[in-house]
Parts: sequence; structure tokens; C-alpha cells
Amino acid sequence: MGNLLVAQSGGPTAAINATIVGVLEMAKLSENIEKVYGAKYGIKGVLEEDLIDLDELKRSTKSLELLKQTPAAVLGSCRFKLGKSGSGNMEAQCARIIEVFRKYGITYFVYIGGNDSMDTVYRLHQYCQTKGIADIKVLGAPKTIDNDLPVTDHCPGFGSAAKYIATTVAELERDISVYDVPAVTIVEIMGRNAGWLTASTAMARVNGGKGPALIYLCEHTFDIDRFVEDVREKTADGQGILVAVSEGIKDREGRYISELYQNNLKDEFGHGYLAGVGQILAQIVKEKIGCKVRAVELNLMQRCASHIASATDIEESRMLGMKAVAVAFEGKSGVMVTLDRQDCEEYTIEYGCVDISEVANQEKTVPLSWITEDGHDITQEMFEYLYPLIEGERNIRYRHGIPNNVLLL
Amino acid sequence: MGNLLVAQSGGPTAAINATIVGVLEMAKLSENIEKVYGAKYGIKGVLEEDLIDLDELKRSTKSLELLKQTPAAVLGSCRFKLGKSGSGNMEAQCARIIEVFRKYGITYFVYIGGNDSMDTVYRLHQYCQTKGIADIKVLGAPKTIDNDLPVTDHCPGFGSAAKYIATTVAELERDISVYDVPAVTIVEIMGRNAGWLTASTAMARVNGGKGPALIYLCEHTFDIDRFVEDVREKTADGQGILVAVSEGIKDREGRYISELYQNNLKDEFGHGYLAGVGQILAQIVKEKIGCKVRAVELNLMQRCASHIASATDIEESRMLGMKAVAVAFEGKSGVMVTLDRQDCEEYTIEYGCVDISEVANQEKTVPLSWITEDGHDITQEMFEYLYPLIEGERNIRYRHGIPNNVLLL
Repeated sequence: MGNLLVAQSGGPTAAINATIVGVLEMAKLSENIEKVYGAKYGIKGVLEEDLIDLDELKRSTKSLELLKQTPAAVLGSCRFKLGKSGSGNMEAQCARIIEVFRKYGITYFVYIGGNDSMDTVYRLHQYCQTKGIADIKVLGAPKTIDNDLPVTDHCPGFGSAAKYIATTVAELERDISVYDVPAVTIVEIMGRNAGWLTASTAMARVNGGKGPALIYLCEHTFDIDRFVEDVREKTADGQGILVAVSEGIKDREGRYISELYQNNLKDEFGHGYLAGVGQILAQIVKEKIGCKVRAVELNLMQRCASHIASATDIEESRMLGMKAVAVAFEGKSGVMVTLDRQDCEEYTIEYGCVDISEVANQEKTVPLSWITEDGHDITQEMFEYLYPLIEGERNIRYRHGIPNNVLLL
Repeated sequence: MGNLLVAQSGGPTAAINATIVGVLEMAKLSENIEKVYGAKYGIKGVLEEDLIDLDELKRSTKSLELLKQTPAAVLGSCRFKLGKSGSGNMEAQCARIIEVFRKYGITYFVYIGGNDSMDTVYRLHQYCQTKGIADIKVLGAPKTIDNDLPVTDHCPGFGSAAKYIATTVAELERDISVYDVPAVTIVEIMGRNAGWLTASTAMARVNGGKGPALIYLCEHTFDIDRFVEDVREKTADGQGILVAVSEGIKDREGRYISELYQNNLKDEFGHGYLAGVGQILAQIVKEKIGCKVRAVELNLMQRCASHIASATDIEESRMLGMKAVAVAFEGKSGVMVTLDRQDCEEYTIEYGCVDISEVANQEKTVPLSWITEDGHDITQEMFEYLYPLIEGERNIRYRHGIPNNVLLL
């Protein structure tokens, strides 16, 4: 019998709140847990003893339903790494966290997040081991639209972002096809080092639409001359095309294309100007080819478009929240719960867990073998990996014309 | 008994295809019409005799249902004004159009579009009158996300764009609220001369969300010093804020803010660089206030996000297509069909029509009395005008994880 604390960290997603719902559902059903708290703004809220009581939320069936469709992080988030320069001494921080846990009787801590958050789980677990603290269970639940955590087949939040991107790119393809003039629309997708989201633009083709004519992932070396030739070739028939590009494409030396160019961009007062890689490529197309060109950045919408979340993603995220509590009940600590895809015809997921040391501070990028040889599309294998993750639609509750949300902060 | 021709023009919207559905439904039910044709790429398709037979589409219940959720313009579109410099002699063009009509037995022509398209209807109708052609009925059906056509209470396409914008801004507000640091996110909304779409960002507040802290419409003079002060004031409590801004905001002398600044932006080779007004304001906030700042452009997604179309908008658009055919049957020509809001408690629309001369080449902007005195929000009256237009959700048909569409071109 003890209390549970849940917190969220890293960038917002459409699915991170569903994991809280899973945690609360397990707490609701179990006599092992007395009270549930949430920490505001991630681990910072623990350090600052800024906790809120989630028991009322736990009791409300309607609120739990609305929470599953609420984007971002209902408890707030942070970009904070234990012991990282500026954030203070790690040992002192861990001691402070345990002090707060003791004060509130917390024996279960679920931290939902991406790479940095799993590092926090790792360090806190190590501290507990060193200090012989065995009654506090520290669990990680994955979350990141970037889909770059290792071991787990994919990450909660990714499927919803991919569904938003595939749908939006299909709509953009319809939009740019209305005029019979050559034009290039460059769609910039999030992803500095992992191209999973950019790859999902290919799914805009599933219902017969053309989708992007060219897809450039950040894992593949980007050559500007080659790009100009690719565009020239694809626009040769006089029609408009879509080009999808990762924000993190790099040249042969591994330098970001965006940084290479935007360093040169200055206004009349000499101030540097920040332009996205989509805009930079648009400028290049304009100068080298001269056709109509436009850059579209899917920007923050990729990570918060809950109104078109993948039902698969939301359900898996909820189940992972339940699984985190379940493995804690089994006495495990210092693990991250995982989605384990089964090798069978119908898409099937088993819920597992992995030692946090195998996950922390690692990054899973797209295998080069899943990018076509010409460097500007994805293979069938990649497509088959992605496809089930965007399946299924949620019955979103609207009120006054827009989706209804749970607001705690 | 005669044939009907329908065509689409101007910028894509989520609702323009629903008007074709209405036209086809009336044709299906009436013995006045034998065959239905569509012209490809607007009036250009008529001039070039590039017509397609729509009878098969008309017969398919499933296709008509999918067409209502297909964005952009299923027949293609054009930016083409009769007799405008470069497009040739107007009288010769009208003669050519009538020649094609005669060849295909067309006695009903429905042109769906915005200001330029209504000008085409006007000129073609004038030509018919001058030449004593009484058996050909020329009808206009409104469509524009800008909502800037006069007489009609609002324009098909606007409500869906407004619903997408309100929903997206509500999601962005959740997204930017996760960190407890001062930050400014500037959302740039379409609209060079009419601020209706930017006003619709205020509806992000309907379910208790904060929505934008500041809303700048292009009808109100934009003062940069005042803007900086507004931002400083709204960020004083240390939290993140959203700022919504029309792409077409202008200074005291009526010059576009975007043009004033982007003329000064050059890369190292001296090439001019195109930046949106959101990016320009972001740069100003960065320099003058120094807090974290980001620009988000809703871009083409505003006009093609059919997956979150307003059910009110789609149904009204369909009904306007039916109404256009109905008024033609009554012998009218040279009119645009209209949405007439009734003065009663429950939102009620009657379908009317207006002489095309009252509509062509005119623009309806936001009344200054619907902008608050401080110049950075909308009034309750404006809110009440907007609110019913985003009401209602459609049961979108998905296939393989993304919405299913009808593709003709």
C-alpha cells in the first residue's frame, strides 16, 4: 500500500495524456495504491514540491475520456536533465526527490517522456540502488513523436503525429493539384536526427493520391545539386509536386543544411535571420529552376493535433500507462515499458519492459535499408512498419464546434 | 430540357466540392436536365473545350458522399479573369464560351468561386444580354475561405477554415502551455484584406482555453511599437502567449508590414528573401523583448483541412449548389445564390439570390466596430456572428488510416 506519483516530460504529443489515463485506471482498480499525485512541469515539480492531487480526476469517467483527447501535457512538462550543467548537483537532486517522495508517501513513480526523461529514470533508479532504497519503484513510460527510443517497436505519440502528417499531406496534394501549372510545394517535417515522421508522408498515397514526389529523410546525405536535379525531373511534365523534407537533413560532412544557409541571411541592420530548411530549399528552387515554389512547415501542429489522433496510438499509450503500474506491482523498478510487435499477419502488440540502462541516452534512427536507393523515397518494408500505426479513428467529443479538453494548469 | 455545365475557380476550400454535389443532386432529381458536364480547370476548360462527363459520378451515392469530404477542387481550378491583360479579348472569349455551350447543348452553367469568378459570371451574363441569348442561364455560387463576398451572410468554405483554425489554435495553446517560461508564439493566418479568418482564432476560447492573448486583424492599422508594448504587457506574468495575426496587416499608410520588412532581407549573394509577417514579427519580438519566440504559419492547411470540416458549412455549400439549379429552373440568370441569416434566436439560414452586378469585384471586410477599441481582439457581436458557422462535425469516411477522397484529375 502506497501512493503513486506521475509526471510528464519533454515535447508535447497527442498521446501523452492517454498514458496518465492508463496509470489512473490501474490505480482505480488496485488496492495497492491509496492516493495519486501529479507533479507539475515534470521532475521540476517534484524538486519544487509542486504536486497536485489527481484523485478527483481519477474518479470522473467523463474527465478520463476527455483527457484521452487532450493534447500536449496536462500536468505540464520540462526540458530538464538531472545534474546537467546549470541544473545543479545530481546527488543532491536525487536526495531531494526521495525526500519529497517520503513526505507524500510515494512508493510508485511513473515518468512519461522521451530520451532525457528516460535518463532521469535511469539516474534516479541508480541512486536508489546505491542508497539501498528498495521500496520505491521508478518506472519509465515512452513518449515521443520522433519515434527515436530504442527497444520499443515504436513510441506513443508517433502514430498520431504520423496520421496527422499523412492526412495533411494528402490534403495538401489535393490542394496543389487544382492548377495545371508547374509548382513545387516543400513540406518541412519535424526530426533533427530521426526521419520517421518524414517517412510517414508516404502514407498520403494509401488511397490513390500521388502524395509527395520526393521524400528526403535526415538519415540520408542531402546533396543540393542532386536535389535540384530531382525536382527538375519530377516537374518536367508541367504539373505541381510536393516535396517532403526532414528539418534535420545534413550534407556530406554532417552539417545541417538549415544552419549552413541561414547563417548567411541578414536583414539591413545585419541581424541574423532564422529560416527553416523548407524555406531555404524553396529559395534554391526559385533561383535554380525558377518555377512557382512555396514552403509549408507543419510545425507544432504535428505534435498536438489530437483531433485526428490515431486510435491505435491512443489505446497503446493508455495500455502502457497500465503496464507501468502493473510491472511496479510485480516489484520491478528501473525499467521502461515497451510495445513489442509480434511477428504475425495481423498487427499485434504485446506489452513488455526493458531495463532502463538499455534505453537511456540512445537514439533509434531509420535504417538506411528502409530508404530507396535513389535517396528520395521509402521502401515497402518501411511502409509496412508504419502503416498499422495510423489505423483507427477516435470518436472525438466536440463542444461548441471544437474538441473539448481537460485543463488542469 | 438541356445539359448542365459546372466549373470551379479560385483558391481551394474544404467546401467547394459539396456545391458540386448539390448541383448533381438537383440534376439527378429533375427531368429538365439531361446530361451534366464538368469543365476542367475552371473557365479555361470551357475555352479549351476540356469537359468531362459527370453522369457516372452523379449516379454513385458513395462517390457523392466521398466528394463532400474531398478538399480542394475536384474539377481543378484557375486564376483567370475574362478579358484581363494577357488572357485575350473578352468579347471573343465570351463568343467562344457560347460556341462550346452550343456544341454540348449546355443551357445551364454554374460557376463556383470567389470575387474573380463572380466577375466572369457577370461578364458572361452581360454578353448574353447584349446578344439576346435568353436560353442560357448563367449562375454563380459563392466560395471563398476569405469570407469577403458581399450580400451573402457568409461564404462556403469559410466555416470549415474557421473550424480548423479555432481547433488548431486551441491545440497550439495547449502545446505552448506545457512549459512555465515566457515565450511568444505568433500564428499567421491567411487574409490580405479581410480579417475574418484571423478573427476566428478567438473561438479557440469557447471551451475554457485561453486562446490567443492578442489578435490583430488586417482591417485595423498595425503599429509596431504598440505591438511590442502589447506583447510586453501580456508576457509580464512569465507565461507563454499566443498571438494571432492576419498576413495582410498594414501600417498607417496602408503598406503591408510583410513587404516593408522583407524587402530588406538578403542572403549573402544579395538575393531578396520572402518571409511571412509572422516570422517578421517574431524577429522583432526577439530583438526588442528577447524572450523565446516562434512563428507558426497555418498556410495551405487552412483551406484544405477537410478532415475537420464544419458540418454546417458543408451542408450549406451543398444546398447552395441545389439552389443555383433551382433558380435557373425559375428562369433566372446572372445571379449569385446567397446565404441569408434570419434574425431569430436559433441560427437559421434561408437560401436566396442576388443580381451578380451587386457582387462582382466587391469585397466585404470586417467592420471596425467588431474589433475591440484596443485593436487586439474581437467584440461579442463578432463572436456571435462567427460561432454558429463552425458548429457540427461530419462523419468522415477513413480508409487505411486517412480520409478517402474522390479523384477525377
